Amino acid sequence: MPSPPTEFDLIAWIRKYAQQFPSSLTRHIGDDGAVFDPSFAASLVVTTDMLIEDVHFKRRWISPRFLGRKTLAVNLSDLAAMGARPYACLLALALPSEGAGDYFYAFMTGFLEEAQRRQCPLIGGDLSASPVVGATVTAWGSIASGSAIYRAGARPGNEILVVGELGLSRLGVQMLDLENPSDLAEIDSEETLARWAGDPFRFRCLKAHFLPDPQVEAGSWLQKNQLATAMIDVSDGLAADLGHIACESAVAAEIDSDALPLPENLDADAALEVVLNGGEDYALLFTCSPEQLAQIRASYPSTFPPFRPIGRIVSDEPGVYLLRKGKRERYEPRGYDHFRS
Amino acid sequence: MPSPPTEFDLIAWIRKYAQQFPSSLTRHIGDDGAVFDPSFAASLVVTTDMLIEDVHFKRRWISPRFLGRKTLAVNLSDLAAMGARPYACLLALALPSEGAGDYFYAFMTGFLEEAQRRQCPLIGGDLSASPVVGATVTAWGSIASGSAIYRAGARPGNEILVVGELGLSRLGVQMLDLENPSDLAEIDSEETLARWAGDPFRFRCLKAHFLPDPQVEAGSWLQKNQLATAMIDVSDGLAADLGHIACESAVAAEIDSDALPLPENLDADAALEVVLNGGEDYALLFTCSPEQLAQIRASYPSTFPPFRPIGRIVSDEPGVYLLRKGKRERYEPRGYDHFRS
Repeated sequence: MPSPPTEFDLIAWIRKYAQQFPSSLTRHIGDDGAVFDPSFAASLVVTTDMLIEDVHFKRRWISPRFLGRKTLAVNLSDLAAMGARPYACLLALALPSEGAGDYFYAFMTGFLEEAQRRQCPLIGGDLSASPVVGATVTAWGSIASGSAIYRAGARPGNEILVVGELGLSRLGVQMLDLENPSDLAEIDSEETLARWAGDPFRFRCLKAHFLPDPQVEAGSWLQKNQLATAMIDVSDGLAADLGHIACESAVAAEIDSDALPLPENLDADAALEVVLNGGEDYALLFTCSPEQLAQIRASYPSTFPPFRPIGRIVSDEPGVYLLRKGKRERYEPRGYDHFRS
Repeated sequence: MPSPPTEFDLIAWIRKYAQQFPSSLTRHIGDDGAVFDPSFAASLVVTTDMLIEDVHFKRRWISPRFLGRKTLAVNLSDLAAMGARPYACLLALALPSEGAGDYFYAFMTGFLEEAQRRQCPLIGGDLSASPVVGATVTAWGSIASGSAIYRAGARPGNEILVVGELGLSRLGVQMLDLENPSDLAEIDSEETLARWAGDPFRFRCLKAHFLPDPQVEAGSWLQKNQLATAMIDVSDGLAADLGHIACESAVAAEIDSDALPLPENLDADAALEVVLNGGEDYALLFTCSPEQLAQIRASYPSTFPPFRPIGRIVSDEPGVYLLRKGKRERYEPRGYDHFRS
């Protein structure tokens, strides 16, 4: 039996992986830190997010390759929410010693695939043994000119829009909870996942959960053209994240329930619940003035996922309000809290 | 009994903590990312490092306040090793739900104390429940002009120098292993640690382990004055980290055993072993030309910890060589490997 790889074997494997680095990067993996010349950017945006075994995922339900892709994707979604274009990332990866080598290679293959797809090279990191799998990414992105888009910029009279799907990821989790599959951790490509899932709707839900699609292009396009007043990505759930915009902007956010994209195959109440409180959607949620909306309608690239107006910002006590069946009611989001489950 | 704090209570606590932010920082905690204008820096240096319970520390031996200080300090040591001045940091903190509130407040108090002391404000992060305590920091540093100092710059004829203490941290760990104290996790100030330790040498060892002193000022001074050809911080152990310089620079590094600062109270062999392979010292290890050494001797600030020449770089097969009792032998470092313990 070959001896397991050392920590330095694993780092050497990453160093040999062909990545495309920006010319402004002067030093990457293999020193105490990475070094770059930031003069290409008017602003830099930095964000960090972690995924921890048995909190964010179960090892028996997600292949290491999918987990690697997801780990980077959820961080890029935060950059998208500020309108930043990905520049580079760092990865701190903690793995149980037993089987660390195989898990590492599969995880890193997924991670580096996603890094290449999103033009966000891995330029450094840390590696450690650990009782459970844990992955922390720091990603940063650049804004060439103009301002980042914050949560605090929504104003009464603004429209509320969303790009991307809602609720599907939570439905994917519900399938896993219900079925507790034993062979899913081997599935590491979209093709095999589609076969495994059987019908197309199941595939869409599982894919939304395993392989979220951060709205990097749409976010960066909105920033570049200054077409959003406030923006956030939907990670806690539509209602909770809209609540963050409302709270930081000190405005009220009204959702038209009829305008929400409800998943098929569900009764209306269940569909609404999963769309409002599902979480892990990584859709882009933003506000804009009527003039900006007109400009979006006129020039939004047809290659992007469609945008959808779902409500408006009004002057009222800050919070989220739901318009449904002719009634308007204040809505309390049921977002996830890590320390009160 | 008051209900435990929510995730948002904890984040609100950080936002209220008075920190001094640089004027180039345009957005910090409370959005999807932090934003800053990087035009003040010729180069930016980024690094990430994690500390994980039962791998890097035991919760019953270190107070959360000390752990908070140490978590930031070990990252700043990596910046020091590149000669960068700390700019800001991100923290991804994972905590078991039970008692998360109290642990969080104590940890963050230590972390933010260290951040203030080192002028490295916390500008964002992530918070999660977890089976074990885990803390990942990403730290950013700036270089105003000139180049960062890499591991690869050592040349034959260079001197090898060290700033900071060696071996004490490992001796501190040995004390903990031997004594398995039950009341140490309550100790959260240097004064109470000194009283707990009893004699001054024990205090120095425990302090070196709990509260490492990253050589930020010395590293930044060497960079600014371009007085080092290669640099690294001693985290794996003197011999292992000197081996990294030797390997990246493709040179041989000779250590004079007589020149090493050996801890008192130990026989010569044990002292040498702990100095060469102890690890977690967070001393600064660097190389320089004889001309640079002359300049260091002439202008090194007296307020910094003393520098000490410990050997030289020669042309030979890359690696570390030990000169002891008139003999010169190739030395194989016994550094820690996370996946082969």
